[in-house]
Amino acid sequence: MKIYLITIGNELLNGKIKDKNAYWLANFCYDQNIQLIRNHLVPDEETAIFTALKDAWDSADVVITSGGLGPTKDDLTKDLVAKFYEKDLIESDEALRTAQKNYEKANRDYSPATKYHIIPKDFEALYNRAGYAPGLLYQAKNKIFASLPGVPSEFKTMFQEEVLPRAKKLHKDQQKHLKQVVVRTWRVPEAKIFTELCPDLWEKLEKFGEVSSLPHPMGVDVGVVLQETSEESLSKKEREVIELIKNTPLKEHIWHIGKDSLEELIIKEASLKNMTIGFAESCTGGLLASRITDVSGSSKVFLGSIIAYANSVKENVLNVSSSTLKEYGAVSKETAWEMAQGARKALGADLVVTTTGIAGPGGATPGKPVGTVGIGHSMEQDCASEMFHFTQRDREDMKYIFSQAALYKMLEQIRNYSSSEAS
Amino acid sequence: MKIYLITIGNELLNGKIKDKNAYWLANFCYDQNIQLIRNHLVPDEETAIFTALKDAWDSADVVITSGGLGPTKDDLTKDLVAKFYEKDLIESDEALRTAQKNYEKANRDYSPATKYHIIPKDFEALYNRAGYAPGLLYQAKNKIFASLPGVPSEFKTMFQEEVLPRAKKLHKDQQKHLKQVVVRTWRVPEAKIFTELCPDLWEKLEKFGEVSSLPHPMGVDVGVVLQETSEESLSKKEREVIELIKNTPLKEHIWHIGKDSLEELIIKEASLKNMTIGFAESCTGGLLASRITDVSGSSKVFLGSIIAYANSVKENVLNVSSSTLKEYGAVSKETAWEMAQGARKALGADLVVTTTGIAGPGGATPGKPVGTVGIGHSMEQDCASEMFHFTQRDREDMKYIFSQAALYKMLEQIRNYSSSEAS
Repeated sequence: MKIYLITIGNELLNGKIKDKNAYWLANFCYDQNIQLIRNHLVPDEETAIFTALKDAWDSADVVITSGGLGPTKDDLTKDLVAKFYEKDLIESDEALRTAQKNYEKANRDYSPATKYHIIPKDFEALYNRAGYAPGLLYQAKNKIFASLPGVPSEFKTMFQEEVLPRAKKLHKDQQKHLKQVVVRTWRVPEAKIFTELCPDLWEKLEKFGEVSSLPHPMGVDVGVVLQETSEESLSKKEREVIELIKNTPLKEHIWHIGKDSLEELIIKEASLKNMTIGFAESCTGGLLASRITDVSGSSKVFLGSIIAYANSVKENVLNVSSSTLKEYGAVSKETAWEMAQGARKALGADLVVTTTGIAGPGGATPGKPVGTVGIGHSMEQDCASEMFHFTQRDREDMKYIFSQAALYKMLEQIRNYSSSEAS
Repeated sequence: MKIYLITIGNELLNGKIKDKNAYWLANFCYDQNIQLIRNHLVPDEETAIFTALKDAWDSADVVITSGGLGPTKDDLTKDLVAKFYEKDLIESDEALRTAQKNYEKANRDYSPATKYHIIPKDFEALYNRAGYAPGLLYQAKNKIFASLPGVPSEFKTMFQEEVLPRAKKLHKDQQKHLKQVVVRTWRVPEAKIFTELCPDLWEKLEKFGEVSSLPHPMGVDVGVVLQETSEESLSKKEREVIELIKNTPLKEHIWHIGKDSLEELIIKEASLKNMTIGFAESCTGGLLASRITDVSGSSKVFLGSIIAYANSVKENVLNVSSSTLKEYGAVSKETAWEMAQGARKALGADLVVTTTGIAGPGGATPGKPVGTVGIGHSMEQDCASEMFHFTQRDREDMKYIFSQAALYKMLEQIRNYSSSEAS
C-alpha cells in the first residue's frame, strides 16, 4: 500500500510552525509495513495544491492531506478538493451528525457558521475524536483520498482510527512481509566503512535488498530492507544479513542491531541491570533529561537531572568547588568530574553522566572554542571525565551532538556496570 | 525570489530521521524576505526525483535539493541531476580543487573514490566549509539550481555562504519590502475569535494583505503579510494593522506583537527586569530547561532546573515533604507548591516555575487522567500553584503542552514582578 501525504499551509512554508505530521506518519507507516512514498508541502494556493493532488492521485493508493480544514478563511482544502474531484459542495445530514458528535464530546453546541456540515458530494465526513473539524474521505478506483486536520493530535488520531482501517480493508491482499534490518555503529566515519574497512560490504548486502547508509553525529546506521513472502523466510534472511556484517571489521563498531533509539536502549538496558540513572547538565541544558523522558516507562530507571547552567548552581547544588571553577573553568575535565560526583550524591543514582561545554554562538574563550565539551560519568567504583571537540554548528545542533556524546557514554557505562557495584 | 526545496532520501520517508532543513530554510527565507514556495520530500528514486525537479524548475527562481550527495551507492542526486539537465558527468579540475579544499581543512587527503571531482558539465562545485561533499550549482534562464548535502550543518552553511549570494546577485531588482505582522494571543479558542469576539476582523485585515490564523496549544497567532514598495509605507501599514486589532475585544488576549517565541520573550523580559529564573520539572522532564537554553544568551537570566522525576529527588533536593507526597500525591497543587518553594531556594533564583503531571500513556490514577498537571510558581513575595487538565494526546505532545502552560505562567509572573521584590 502506497501513501502520499500532501501537507497544506503557508504557516509551514514561512517557518512559523514546524510540521510534525510527516515525520510521525513516516514512522508510523514504517512500523505498519506501509510505504510512505512522498510528502509534498504546499501553500494554501490552488495551483500548488492541484499539482500535488494530481501527482498524488496518479502515483499512490492512499492520498492524505493535512491542514486547511478549519473554520477560517485561509482554510481552503475542502473547496479545492471538491473542485479537484469535480464534486459539488452539499449540505449533508450525515456530516451534520458527525460535526455535532465532535462538539458533543466537549459539551459544546455545534456552530453551523463553521460549515462543517457542508461537504463534497460522494464524500464521507470523518469523526474527529481529538478536535472539532471533521475529516473528509472519498473512495474511487480502488483508491482512498482523505483530508485530515493539521493539528498533530487530530491528524494522528484520525489517521489511525478512521483512515487506516478503511485503507487496510481495501488493500487486504497487497500486504507484503517487509523488514528493515538496521545495524547501528559508532566511532567510524561513513566513508571509511565502505572504502577501507569493508569495501565489498555494500555489494554483498545488495543481494538481500535495498541497502542504505545513514550517518548520525558520531555514528552510522547501515540498513537493508528485506521483502519476503513469509515471516519465516524474513527471519532467515535477517539472520544471514546480521551474520554477514558481523564477519567484517565493522563488528567492533556495532553498538546495536535493531531500530531502538539510543534513549530506548538506555532505559531497556538499565532496567535489565536494575540500575538507576541521572544527569547533571550544563551546556545540554535539559536536553539529555528531555530525550530520556520522551521514552515511555523511563521513570523506572531515570531519577532526575540537575541543570546547573549557572556556576552558583554547580557550587551549591552539585558541590563543585569554587577553586576548581576558578582554576580550570566551568568547561573542563575537572569540573565535569566534580559535577558527576556531586550529582550522583544529590540524585542518589547508580550512574550519572554530566556535560559542561560551549554550545555557542557566544561563550568561546582562548583554547576553548564553541564545540568544546567535558563529559563525565560517576558510578560507585568508577568516576572519570574527558574533553571532546566538535566542529562548530548552530546552537541547537551543538546541544544535540553534546547530548549524543553523553548518551553514548551512558550506554557504554551501563554495559560496564556489574551488579556487584550495586549499592 | 521564489525558492523550491526538494528533499531527497528514503531515510526521511521511513521515519529513520527527521528532516531539519525544510523548517530551517522556511524560517531563514522568511527573515530574509524570500519566499519558500514548496518543499517536496521524495525517495532516492528516479521518477519521483524527476517529477519534483520538473515541477520545481517550472515554478521557482531558485531550486535547491537537499541530500543524496555522499559517497555511498544510495546517493543518486548527482547522477539524476546530470540526467535531468542532460549534461554529461565529467572530471573537473575546479571540482577537484574544491574537494581537496574540503578535505584539507580537516587535515585529510582527498579520496578520489568518493568521485567528488566528477560533476555534470556546466555545473560548478561548491565549497563545503562544514563537511566533505561539495555542492553543485547550475545557472540558466535567470534561474539557479543547487544541490546541497542533507546534513543540516552543511546544508545551512552552504545555503548561506554559497547559494544565497549568487541568488541575490541574480535577483537584485526583484526584492520587495515584505513584512508579516504577527499578533499572538492566548486563552481564547480560534473559532471564538472570528465568529463571536470580532466577526468582521478577518475582512478588515484582508484589506492590508494576506491574513492567517494559526492555533497553538493555548493560543492563536493572527498574522497579516504586508507588501509595500518602501520601508516607510511598510511601517505605516504595520501601525495601522496593530491599531485595528487593538481596537477589538481581542486586545485583552494579546500577549505579544511580533515574531519572538515565548522562550525569547521570557529571556528578553527577565533580562530587562534584571531577574534570574529557573524551574523544577517532573512531567516536562527537562523540556522547559531545554527550550529556554535553545535561546542564545539565556545564561544571562537562566540559572538552572531541578528535574525531579523520582519522588526521592523531590524530597531530597527540593525538600518536598513526604507527608505531602503521601497525602496529596506527586501530581497535586500541594506538591507543585512545595516544589516551587524548594527549587527557588536550591537554585537561588528570583522566579521559579514548576510542573508535576501525567504525560502518559501510563501513570493515570482515579481522578487524575493523563493530561493532568500541577503548575506552580514561586517568587519572594508570592507563591501559588494550580491544576490544569489537557486532552490526552501522545507523550511528546503532552510534554510540550505542559511546557507551554508553564512558560505562559512564567511570562505572566515576570510581568507581575516588580523590582521591589528583588532580593
